[in-house]
Amino acid sequence: MHILVTNDDGVNAPGLLALAQEMRLLGEVSILAPDRNWSGGGHVKTIGRPLRVNEVTLADGSLAYASDGAPSDCVALATLGYFKKKVDLVVSGINPQPNLGHDVTYSGTVTAAMEAVIWGLPGLAFSLSSEKDHLGDVDYYPSARLARQITARTIEHGLAPGILLNVNFPYLPENAIQGIKITRQGLRVYRDRLDRRVDPRGQDYFWIGGDAPTGIPEDGTDIGALAEGYVSITPLQLDLTAYWDMDSLEDWVGQPARELVPAG
Amino acid sequence: MHILVTNDDGVNAPGLLALAQEMRLLGEVSILAPDRNWSGGGHVKTIGRPLRVNEVTLADGSLAYASDGAPSDCVALATLGYFKKKVDLVVSGINPQPNLGHDVTYSGTVTAAMEAVIWGLPGLAFSLSSEKDHLGDVDYYPSARLARQITARTIEHGLAPGILLNVNFPYLPENAIQGIKITRQGLRVYRDRLDRRVDPRGQDYFWIGGDAPTGIPEDGTDIGALAEGYVSITPLQLDLTAYWDMDSLEDWVGQPARELVPAG
Repeated sequence: MHILVTNDDGVNAPGLLALAQEMRLLGEVSILAPDRNWSGGGHVKTIGRPLRVNEVTLADGSLAYASDGAPSDCVALATLGYFKKKVDLVVSGINPQPNLGHDVTYSGTVTAAMEAVIWGLPGLAFSLSSEKDHLGDVDYYPSARLARQITARTIEHGLAPGILLNVNFPYLPENAIQGIKITRQGLRVYRDRLDRRVDPRGQDYFWIGGDAPTGIPEDGTDIGALAEGYVSITPLQLDLTAYWDMDSLEDWVGQPARELVPAG
Repeated sequence: MHILVTNDDGVNAPGLLALAQEMRLLGEVSILAPDRNWSGGGHVKTIGRPLRVNEVTLADGSLAYASDGAPSDCVALATLGYFKKKVDLVVSGINPQPNLGHDVTYSGTVTAAMEAVIWGLPGLAFSLSSEKDHLGDVDYYPSARLARQITARTIEHGLAPGILLNVNFPYLPENAIQGIKITRQGLRVYRDRLDRRVDPRGQDYFWIGGDAPTGIPEDGTDIGALAEGYVSITPLQLDLTAYWDMDSLEDWVGQPARELVPAG
């Protein structure tokens, strides 16, 4: 079992190291992660420029590889053959902030797991609801141990084709965690504000700022599970079709098509 | 009706101009788009650096705004108040290559429409199946006229909450287009290869290269509709939950949770 470990906070983030150390108990681990923070960076395929990969040494002395691409690029590099040995499974994290609700398409942590699915591999994204701003202030090891158990189950049972798991841990002492819930994606409430500032040369610039997102802690959702002290596992797929809306669209497209397409 | 026009090929792309010109027949148009090509750039929220916005003049003499952010950042800037007048609708494109199947989470064109949905606005992404590599070699006007008709219907009927439309046009003479089909997302077949090269200083670098993706032209899908000469409209949502897989996960998580969570 050859496990690729990546993340979106950069290869030196402590959450990655904790995850990699636990994954070594399950198989051979390769680490290929961005050389910088890609939070909020989305599902990227870098095709307009080439990518570099450099060897780095992590805090525990282990070898890792740092790329100037996005988390999803790191997964593409690895699955397309950067490592001699075929990758069997991709894990991403541990992100210190949770990735819930609509965060999933923004999240570098989650989109790394999406890229695994694109290449036919199981992908697991791990995030921790620490709400801390500084990566180093967080204790990742309780979550990393749970991540190992969830990954071990995934190896044992497999994932259905096209499925990635978006796993979020509550930031609680291990004995305060209530259990695990299989959840659906909840509703995030974003509180971004545009912050217009003026630089020393008198030119405007703009921060997408505001407060951290909240969410609706509805029962059955990822947000709801975390709020009750449960680990949330949401199975995600890359088919975004809103099947439930297709009939109403048929209606308004009309008799269909024909009327909308100019006569030849 | 205040319509925001954006794209992922950059503000000066001819596909954006054609779309903007047609949108002016439906309402007031503001153009805010990236200052460079963001193809394959994903659903980005740029929070680690501020964004700049500069005025530019398009080929038809009209005013537009260029940002150094991603397409989705342009939408966030506009919906969070860059323009004094509230935006009512977001259109993105026209991309010269199609955005089909799993392309949707990578695509800057589509993720701009996703960002519209995040902020509660209708979003439409328009792409053209030209298969041309050079933006300027493409005639965008037949597609732009169809985009106007589809947008007019959207304004008339509205979209269900949380829905964006991923619209792909076949690159055919207008009288050869068969009509419009409401479709589901099909299956892309990516043919990326890792292309390892050596720079003049003897260091490796890596292109994510290979051939353009193909797809499975299954009946009912976006890929199938284009292959038959139809315009494809796929309603997309940002809930990626694989509801169908939740029961099997419950099974393997087991008696659930408890066993996986270390005793306190």
